[in-house]
Amino acid sequence: MKSYRKELWFNIPTRREFRNITPHVEECLRESKIREGLCLVNAMHITASVFINDDESGLHHDYEVWLEKLAPHEPISQYQHNLTGEDNGDAHLKRQVMGREVTVAITDGRLDFGTWEQIFYGEFDGRRKKRVLVKIIGE
Amino acid sequence: MKSYRKELWFNIPTRREFRNITPHVEECLRESKIREGLCLVNAMHITASVFINDDESGLHHDYEVWLEKLAPHEPISQYQHNLTGEDNGDAHLKRQVMGREVTVAITDGRLDFGTWEQIFYGEFDGRRKKRVLVKIIGE
Amino acid sequence: MKSYRKELWFNIPTRREFRNITPHVEECLRESKIREGLCLVNAMHITASVFINDDESGLHHDYEVWLEKLAPHEPISQYQHNLTGEDNGDAHLKRQVMGREVTVAITDGRLDFGTWEQIFYGEFDGRRKKRVLVKIIGE
Repeated sequence: MKSYRKELWFNIPTRREFRNITPHVEECLRESKIREGLCLVNAMHITASVFINDDESGLHHDYEVWLEKLAPHEPISQYQHNLTGEDNGDAHLKRQVMGREVTVAITDGRLDFGTWEQIFYGEFDGRRKKRVLVKIIGE
Repeated sequence: MKSYRKELWFNIPTRREFRNITPHVEECLRESKIREGLCLVNAMHITASVFINDDESGLHHDYEVWLEKLAPHEPISQYQHNLTGEDNGDAHLKRQVMGREVTVAITDGRLDFGTWEQIFYGEFDGRRKKRVLVKIIGE
Repeated sequence: MKSYRKELWFNIPTRREFRNITPHVEECLRESKIREGLCLVNAMHITASVFINDDESGLHHDYEVWLEKLAPHEPISQYQHNLTGEDNGDAHLKRQVMGREVTVAITDGRLDFGTWEQIFYGEFDGRRKKRVLVKIIGE
């Protein structure tokens, strides 16, 4: 069994953004030389997500509006977590809806995806350097 | 390390449905001859889910009502994604709540499940052929 | 390839609670002697979650309030599932938001975590013995 590990670093200039990281994960897969196995991609921070969906800007706008409705950023005081001095209580909630991680099948040396599947980093508390972990195991 | 891959195809006649696919995944596991490992089951489409819960029709009704409240299908115009000519903006949101994938432990050649765990395909934009991927790795 | 399996049992005295189970999973990892691989941790019950987030009591309070808003426990009669004699319809919904499982990378014999990542058992229908599965594969 082979294993491969890499950290991807991002510094999103705004509080929230969805960024397509599929090319980065594909580069990891090439470096790993793994042909059959599983690839885990997870946020290493608890106010960010990794998820799979469509690379369509209208949809990303819809996610933004929807998540803000489900877990509004303001008023800051509505979240006890913000009593610690943070203002990111909402980000911890939004991240649970969108998820921490994806596991992707590796077949014939490629990400085994349906037509429209793309991997996104979902930032909910940006404006600082944060990490995503790529771990691949297989042969 | 062994690996196994199969696509399961579904053509749900309605827009939304939850279908128990556990027997299909069990058949994949038998074919794979893998006794110890991990089994990934994921929707290959971004308006569908794979999730684990109870095979109880009242609960499925509750999920339907709840998801429709969290992310209503209509009015279509509330989602920018639908400006692309689609009417499935809500399906992309519902799928995030229910999840893209499950990873199941394989122990002694069986799905290592609690008493009531069953695997479901959650369709949110049906009436066409769509795929689920089963990938198993182990020994 | 090595594989390891253990069930963790919990009997949460209240209906709902978030409990940090990271030390239990770390003990499993030590017992497994696996240095590189993947660790799956999943609830074996369909009214409980396993998720990764921050060990901060204010945040846990915020999750409790938020989940109760998204999927209220009462009135019991709002869920068809409760017609079966259960009163845990809401728990099946809350569990979908928080998730069934996490997959964690194992690197150099440790859980490959960001600074604040901790694994939680999320109980939504407690006051009885319930199980979490830890399955580790690797080398």
